[in-house]
Amino acid sequence: MKSIALCLCLAAMTGMAYGQSAETLQIRAVREKNEYRWIQEYIPFLSIPNIASDSIQINKNAAYIFQMMKNRGIEHVQYLTADSKGTPPVVYGEVNIAGADSTLIFYAHYDGQPVDSTQWSKILSPFSPKLLNGSLENQASLIPFPDATGKYDPEWRIYARSASDDKAGIMAILAAYEAVKQAGYSFHYNLRFFFEGEEEAGSTHLYQIFQKYTNLLKSDLWVICDGPVHQSSKKMIAFGVRGDAHVEVTVYGPSRPLHSGHYGNWAPNPSLMLAKLLASMKDEKGRVTIPGFYNNITPLTPEEKKAIAETPSVDSQMKNELKFSNEEMTGLGLTESLMLPSLNINGMQGGNIGKQASNVIPTSASAVLDLRMVMGNEYTVQQQKVLNFIRKQGYHITQQEPTDAERKEFPKIAKVKLSEGYNAQRTSMSLPFAKKLIAAVKSTSREQLVLLPSMGGSVPLFVFEKYLNAHTLMVPIANHDNNQHAENENIRLQNLWNGIETLAAIMMMK
Amino acid sequence: MKSIALCLCLAAMTGMAYGQSAETLQIRAVREKNEYRWIQEYIPFLSIPNIASDSIQINKNAAYIFQMMKNRGIEHVQYLTADSKGTPPVVYGEVNIAGADSTLIFYAHYDGQPVDSTQWSKILSPFSPKLLNGSLENQASLIPFPDATGKYDPEWRIYARSASDDKAGIMAILAAYEAVKQAGYSFHYNLRFFFEGEEEAGSTHLYQIFQKYTNLLKSDLWVICDGPVHQSSKKMIAFGVRGDAHVEVTVYGPSRPLHSGHYGNWAPNPSLMLAKLLASMKDEKGRVTIPGFYNNITPLTPEEKKAIAETPSVDSQMKNELKFSNEEMTGLGLTESLMLPSLNINGMQGGNIGKQASNVIPTSASAVLDLRMVMGNEYTVQQQKVLNFIRKQGYHITQQEPTDAERKEFPKIAKVKLSEGYNAQRTSMSLPFAKKLIAAVKSTSREQLVLLPSMGGSVPLFVFEKYLNAHTLMVPIANHDNNQHAENENIRLQNLWNGIETLAAIMMMK
Repeated sequence: MKSIALCLCLAAMTGMAYGQSAETLQIRAVREKNEYRWIQEYIPFLSIPNIASDSIQINKNAAYIFQMMKNRGIEHVQYLTADSKGTPPVVYGEVNIAGADSTLIFYAHYDGQPVDSTQWSKILSPFSPKLLNGSLENQASLIPFPDATGKYDPEWRIYARSASDDKAGIMAILAAYEAVKQAGYSFHYNLRFFFEGEEEAGSTHLYQIFQKYTNLLKSDLWVICDGPVHQSSKKMIAFGVRGDAHVEVTVYGPSRPLHSGHYGNWAPNPSLMLAKLLASMKDEKGRVTIPGFYNNITPLTPEEKKAIAETPSVDSQMKNELKFSNEEMTGLGLTESLMLPSLNINGMQGGNIGKQASNVIPTSASAVLDLRMVMGNEYTVQQQKVLNFIRKQGYHITQQEPTDAERKEFPKIAKVKLSEGYNAQRTSMSLPFAKKLIAAVKSTSREQLVLLPSMGGSVPLFVFEKYLNAHTLMVPIANHDNNQHAENENIRLQNLWNGIETLAAIMMMK
Repeated sequence: MKSIALCLCLAAMTGMAYGQSAETLQIRAVREKNEYRWIQEYIPFLSIPNIASDSIQINKNAAYIFQMMKNRGIEHVQYLTADSKGTPPVVYGEVNIAGADSTLIFYAHYDGQPVDSTQWSKILSPFSPKLLNGSLENQASLIPFPDATGKYDPEWRIYARSASDDKAGIMAILAAYEAVKQAGYSFHYNLRFFFEGEEEAGSTHLYQIFQKYTNLLKSDLWVICDGPVHQSSKKMIAFGVRGDAHVEVTVYGPSRPLHSGHYGNWAPNPSLMLAKLLASMKDEKGRVTIPGFYNNITPLTPEEKKAIAETPSVDSQMKNELKFSNEEMTGLGLTESLMLPSLNINGMQGGNIGKQASNVIPTSASAVLDLRMVMGNEYTVQQQKVLNFIRKQGYHITQQEPTDAERKEFPKIAKVKLSEGYNAQRTSMSLPFAKKLIAAVKSTSREQLVLLPSMGGSVPLFVFEKYLNAHTLMVPIANHDNNQHAENENIRLQNLWNGIETLAAIMMMK
C-alpha cells in the first residue's frame, strides 16, 4: 500500500506542474492498476448483440450491466420498465450519500445501431471485439489482447459495435465510480446510474419510464455520456443536442419488375424518379430548398456565440482526415453547420448494384431521410415541410402501398412514412450546476475545454426536460473518428482513460 | 397406333377450319401426349442454378442439356469451348439430312440473370420450380405438379429462374425436334443446335467460339429463340435486337462513414451527389440529356416502318397491366421507344434502407446504368458520351478507387467502369430465308403475326454477323409477363406449347 501511495503522490506532483488536479492523477494511477480487469470485463459486454428490437439479446446486455453494478456495490440496482411490452429496460442503480442535498444522474445507453457485417473490414466482426494497434485508416494491425502482465498502449483501439457508442459510456461511468472509491475520495452528491436500451431506436418509450418513475428520477443534473469529444481531441461539454426524426419515402414504377431492354425508357423507372426527387431537395450550394426549412430557429445567446467563436476550427484538419475538399454547404464551417437544421440521405436504393445488378426496371425505389432539428424547430413541422415538398413535386402521397386505382390515376406516387422523433434541447450556460461541471472537467486537463451550445448529434434530452423538468449536460468521451453508427466502430483507449478521469472528477465535485 | 392416327387426323381437320396447318395440329397432338414427360424433364433442369460465373453449376446445366440431346438421337453432341478458361461451354449437336443444301441453327441460352432470393415471393424459390394455377399478380395459388395421369391447364405457370429466359427456348427446341420425328414428318434442311451459357453475362467469349468453330457453324439462318412474344400475345418474329452495354458509376463522400448528426450537411453526401448526377441525365419529358445520345441512328426502311405501323398498340393494355399512367418519354409509344437508344438505371444504392438503415453519411454511392443501342450506334461511343457527360458535370473521372491525393484535389470524383458490350443488329425483311420463316410461323396460328424490326431486348447478334457473316432471326416464345431478369420469373404453359408448334414448323420448312 505504501509504494502505491508514494507512486500516487509523485504522479500528483508531476501532474500539478501541468495544471491537472492531484485527484485526477490519483484516479489515473488507479486506472492503470485496473486496466486489464476492466478490459476483460468490457470484451464480453461488447460481444452481446444490441439492436434494441432484438429483445433476447438486449435483455442479456441489461443483465450484464446489472451484474457489473452489483459487483461495484451500487445500491438498489433494478430494471426500470416501460408499459409497452418489449421495450428494453433501463438498468438503474443508486449511491446515496449521507447528508447530500443534491443528486447527479449519469446516463449512457447500451443499445447500438443496426449492423451490416458485410460492410465491416474482413479482419473485424461487429460482435467479436478486436484489438488493433491504431486505427484501421492508418493501416493498423490486429493484435492479441494483452494478458494480466502486459501493458495497453493508449493509442490502441478496440473495434466492435458500440465500442464507443455507447457501451464506452457505461464502462467509463462504472470504472470512474470504482476508481473514486479505490482512491479513497468522497462523493458530495447522491449518484444515480441510468443506462437506457433503446436510444438508437429513438428512445420512443423513454417518456413512459420518466412518467412511471418520476420520484425515483428527481435530480439536480443529468450527466449524459454519449457521442464523441471535439475533433481537436480537446475535452468537451455540450449544452444541447439537435433533435432527430426520419422521413421514409418510396416511389413507384411498374407493378412488376420489367426487363430493361423490352421496356427501357417506356415504363417509368422509380430510381430515376427518386433521384430527381432527392436532387430537388438541395440547391447547388447545398442549401435545403424545401420552403421554410430554415425558419423558426431560436437565435444563440451572446454567451453561446462567444463559445462558438472560441471553438477551435477543425475544418481543414477534418477535410484532410476525411479526404474531401468541399463542404456540402458552400462556405459554411462545421460548427456553424451544426447550428442549423439538416436533411441527410441516410440511405437510398432502387434495384441492385454490384454482383446483384440485373437488367431491370424495379417496381419501387426508396430513401430514408434523416432530419436534425435545432432549438425552435418542431420535428413534426419539419417532417410536414418535407412531405409538402414531395407533394409539390407532383406526387400523390399515401401512407401505405398504393392501390391499383391510385397507381393508374396518379403518374407519381410517394409512400411517405414520418417516424416518431424528438426536438432539440439546450441547457443554459449560466446554470449553477453547469458552472460546477465546467470547473470539474477543467481540473482534469491542461488543455482548452470546448463548450458547444449544441452537438450535431441527438439524444432525446427534450424528453428529459418535458417529463422530468430536468437539466442535462452532455459529457462525451469517445474519439471523434470512432465510426459510430457505421462499420468498423471503435474506441481509442486513451479516450476511455480520459473519460474515466472526466467522469470521476464530476462525481467528486462539490 | 391407329387410334392416335385417327385422333391426329380429327385434330388436323378441326384445325384447318381455323387456318392452322395440318402439321401444326399433328404436332399439337404429339405434344399433348408428351407433356408430362417433358415437364418431368424440365423440372430438374430448372433446379440447377445457372449464373454464368458459377462454373460448377453451369457445367451441370451443360451436362444436363448434353444428355437431353443424346436422348433424342441428335448427332455429334459436343461442347464447344472458348479459349478463355472458365467460359461456360456451348452445347452443340447436329441433325444431318441427306441431300439438304441448307442449314438452320437453333440458338437458345441456358445461363440466367443473378437472383436475390429474398426478393422472390415467399411461396417461391428461384431454383426450386413451382407450379401455380395462373400468375402471381392474379393471386394464383401453388399447386402440385400433376402425375402421369393428370392434365396440365395451359394457363398454369412454372415459376423458376430461367423458366422463360431462356431454358424455355432449349426445352421448346428439343421438344419440337422430338415432336416432328414422332409425328413422322421430314426435315428439309440440316439442323444444328447451339445452346450458349453466358448470354446473361454479355456473351463476352462468344466470338472466340465463333472464331474457333467457323466451319462447324456455317449456316443459312440462325433461329434465335429468346425473349418474350408480343404483349398482344400474338406470335412474333423480330428482325433485330438492340445492343447492350453498361456503365457503372461510383461517387465519393468522406473516406470513412460519418455520423449524420455530427457531420450532417457539412460533409458531402455521395447519395445526394449521385441523385443529382442521375437526375441530370434525363429531362422532364424523359429524354436523355446527354449530348449526341440520339445521334447516328440508322433510319428504318419503308418495309420496317410499315411493320411497325401494323404492330398492334398495346400501350393502354400494358399501362393497365403494369399499373402506371404515364410513359417515361412523354407521348412516345412502346414500339417507338424501342427503336431509340435507351439509358436505364438498373440499380442505385447509397447507404442502406429499411431495417439496415442507419444515421450515416456513407463513403460512396453507386449506380449501374444499362445502355441499349439501335442500328447506327457504336456501343463504345455511347458509353463515352455518358462518361463525357459525367465529366461535364464537374466530376474527375477515375477507373479505380481514387487516391487520397485525388480525393483532396477534386470536389467531385466518379469512378466509371465501362463494361464490354455489343452493338445492335438487324436482318433485312427481304432476305429469302426470312420470307420462308414468316410463312412457316404464319402456318401455325390463325392470328396476325407481329413483325418487329427490332426487339427492345438484346442478344449479341452483332457478333454472329461480324464473325460468322450469319443471318439471324429472333423467334421468341415466352409470355410477355414472364418477369425475366427479376424475381418471380415464370413461363405460361400455353406459351411453351405454342413455342413447340412454332419451332417445329420452322424445322419442317422447305
